[in-house]
Amino acid sequence: MNALCIIGGRVLRPDCSVENADVVIDTDTGRIHDIGEDIAADYDAAETLDADGCLVMPGLVNAHTHVAMTLLRGYADDKPLDSWLREDIWPAEAELEPEDVRAGTELGLIEMIRSGTTTFADMYFEVPEIAAAVEASGMRARLGHGIVTVAKDDAEAATDIEEGLRVAREFDGAADGRIHTAFMPHSLTTVDEKFLRESVATARENEIPLHFHANETTDEVDPIVEERDQRPLAYADELGMVSEEDFLAHGVHVDAAEIELLAERGTGVIHCPASNMKLASGIAPVQQMLDAGVTVGIGTDGAASNNDLDMFDELRDAAMLGKLGADDASAVPAEAAITAATAGSADAIGLPGGRIEEGGVADIAVVDLDAPHLAPAHDVVSHLAYAVRGSDVRHTICDGQILMRDREVLTLDEEEVVETACERAMALVERAE
Amino acid sequence: MNALCIIGGRVLRPDCSVENADVVIDTDTGRIHDIGEDIAADYDAAETLDADGCLVMPGLVNAHTHVAMTLLRGYADDKPLDSWLREDIWPAEAELEPEDVRAGTELGLIEMIRSGTTTFADMYFEVPEIAAAVEASGMRARLGHGIVTVAKDDAEAATDIEEGLRVAREFDGAADGRIHTAFMPHSLTTVDEKFLRESVATARENEIPLHFHANETTDEVDPIVEERDQRPLAYADELGMVSEEDFLAHGVHVDAAEIELLAERGTGVIHCPASNMKLASGIAPVQQMLDAGVTVGIGTDGAASNNDLDMFDELRDAAMLGKLGADDASAVPAEAAITAATAGSADAIGLPGGRIEEGGVADIAVVDLDAPHLAPAHDVVSHLAYAVRGSDVRHTICDGQILMRDREVLTLDEEEVVETACERAMALVERAE
Ligand SMILES: [Zn+2]
Ligand SMILES: [Zn+2]
Repeated sequence: MNALCIIGGRVLRPDCSVENADVVIDTDTGRIHDIGEDIAADYDAAETLDADGCLVMPGLVNAHTHVAMTLLRGYADDKPLDSWLREDIWPAEAELEPEDVRAGTELGLIEMIRSGTTTFADMYFEVPEIAAAVEASGMRARLGHGIVTVAKDDAEAATDIEEGLRVAREFDGAADGRIHTAFMPHSLTTVDEKFLRESVATARENEIPLHFHANETTDEVDPIVEERDQRPLAYADELGMVSEEDFLAHGVHVDAAEIELLAERGTGVIHCPASNMKLASGIAPVQQMLDAGVTVGIGTDGAASNNDLDMFDELRDAAMLGKLGADDASAVPAEAAITAATAGSADAIGLPGGRIEEGGVADIAVVDLDAPHLAPAHDVVSHLAYAVRGSDVRHTICDGQILMRDREVLTLDEEEVVETACERAMALVERAE
Repeated sequence: MNALCIIGGRVLRPDCSVENADVVIDTDTGRIHDIGEDIAADYDAAETLDADGCLVMPGLVNAHTHVAMTLLRGYADDKPLDSWLREDIWPAEAELEPEDVRAGTELGLIEMIRSGTTTFADMYFEVPEIAAAVEASGMRARLGHGIVTVAKDDAEAATDIEEGLRVAREFDGAADGRIHTAFMPHSLTTVDEKFLRESVATARENEIPLHFHANETTDEVDPIVEERDQRPLAYADELGMVSEEDFLAHGVHVDAAEIELLAERGTGVIHCPASNMKLASGIAPVQQMLDAGVTVGIGTDGAASNNDLDMFDELRDAAMLGKLGADDASAVPAEAAITAATAGSADAIGLPGGRIEEGGVADIAVVDLDAPHLAPAHDVVSHLAYAVRGSDVRHTICDGQILMRDREVLTLDEEEVVETACERAMALVERAE
């Protein structure tokens, strides 16, 4: 066995307890071989990582994003959702070239690795470019092509759906199994019923999971209710989109029956608190969903509506906003927010990880606790939820491979990626304007 | 003139425009002498700071906090407000020794300097210790003794009020004029009417400004309305507490008439979005207050309800939560949040600063924009509101003195402060339990 040892840290276990322990990784399998106090000396480690003064925690799982949108970070902020999409985001996205998506994705992957995220779920275009970037980065991901059929003729819509099914088939299992896929109709209102009905059936036959935006704003929910006299998730269920393999983003405006349905089916809900605040969408009933047994994950959504991909920001927002929404300062406690951002997200998107446990995948973030804003250490779990920033992450490991060591990203060339992304972003918005 | 030159950066001006400029500081007066492109060479600078790739912005102003509560960071999270105060915070605070306050304050000052804050307003106990820490740190502050009279006998209450008046008189103008003071009754419900009426009159006669918590929760507002048949700020106004020199914290539950009163009088409101979320207090109508012409500042509140003193977190929360509260994605835009955290805060608490302008005080944060999470730079003002973290601050200057250079705090011994604070925090909670 080739061992990578993470030495001298405190380890966050799946029940949110913390113990002094070394973590021994089998780099041939990419799995955690052993966890225990002072055990590193028992192994002839090929490589070691210093975790002195650090917390060794599961790599964060960003369960809903559009990574390449980093290119549009800060491009058009503080606008109402509708004009933001129509006047700024969509025209810019219409100009995207495959190389732009590659550049924006690589920028986002570096940002995620630097803030302790090892795994993500992404809905965007030019999936082959995204898959290539993920492969190079060493991260784990579930990828899909975002399908929109409104305002398209039938042939264009069919082509879009075909692309969605094609990439879902082609890239499942790519990058030594670190990449899996899903079929990703954008939402229940941006894909017409006839296309949705047909394509979802095809996806189901091919055992491809589904991911879509749902119940994000009242502007999206109300027309469905009016037109169909049924709640959005009842409609989705009728189409066969609410299964254990599936996961939906947002779930802000869900009623009790919809929460019950999600819990019953085991369908994951990805909470995106920053995006929901920035676009004034509303507050998702996170504590209610947790109480009902829904699998809740956390995502940043795209950088244009956040504006960063830092999951520590996001899980803090989840804990904070969950209290406000429940009118209860004890709602969505630190443990719940951290669990949602790790095991909850991983379970929701159907990828391994989110837990430091023997035999589990070695997807790990090592967080430096030795900083003035993290002193004193009454409760490091509270610190993770309320005080740690992405910049406190010292090392990031995915599938047993070191992606960042001592804040240096090893798998991608940071300087080159940032430069390329900036050039492409400027050229992109020039074309769009 | 002894010149300190900040060279090669982009400067954020009071109207939120950005220009390439050097900033020349007269360190004898502590004021900004000149701002302009490539002007540094015209001065024989005794000292220079490199701002290449950086934004030179006003030092942030944390307009409401209880700095020494850093000792209780993460001590008792995720609890309802009432039991949090009664079971955890108050028993611990009852055990505070003057040296604890000194240690917790120094820890908080280091955290603030490291995240670009130069100025703050603080309500706590043992003000002489706080003033000594501020003097050593080089920061600017308005300080006061927090007065509570409920559950005290008349003699104890009178002693507390006397202490509040004494420190307000004694420390005004301390630390070469960097320290000013205020009279700080904790809130309208925790100080009895008879004491409030008398002591406010004395403060007014002595031209001492007032600072207090107001309209934070419905649990605080409703009993006042029931008992007096008047809104809290009408009651405060009757007591003479709503003047241009005064500023109140929170203002979450204010009605239109109260907003009008605040605007008319020029009384500052300090918005504390993270605390309001974490304690489930509600959403302050920030955009409405801005529209009405209220001077709005931003504060972190104490670290126990936040859990950090990073004003970049806070102004992001203000922009985000402002949109959610107004149900409008264009509410509290980036410029408004940044202005509130700088000029708004400074004006509200009646201290100079919050603007980079010739002749103004040299209170400055230099923010490094050269990072993956801040690329591309479509709009650096958006980045300040939505993507910059406290850890991106490279240099901090207050009153013309460098407090942090290249992320090294120069005025306090960081290692020693953190160690002392951690030791005292552990001993404190042991005594309290
Ligand atoms: Zn999305
Ligand atoms: Zn307070």
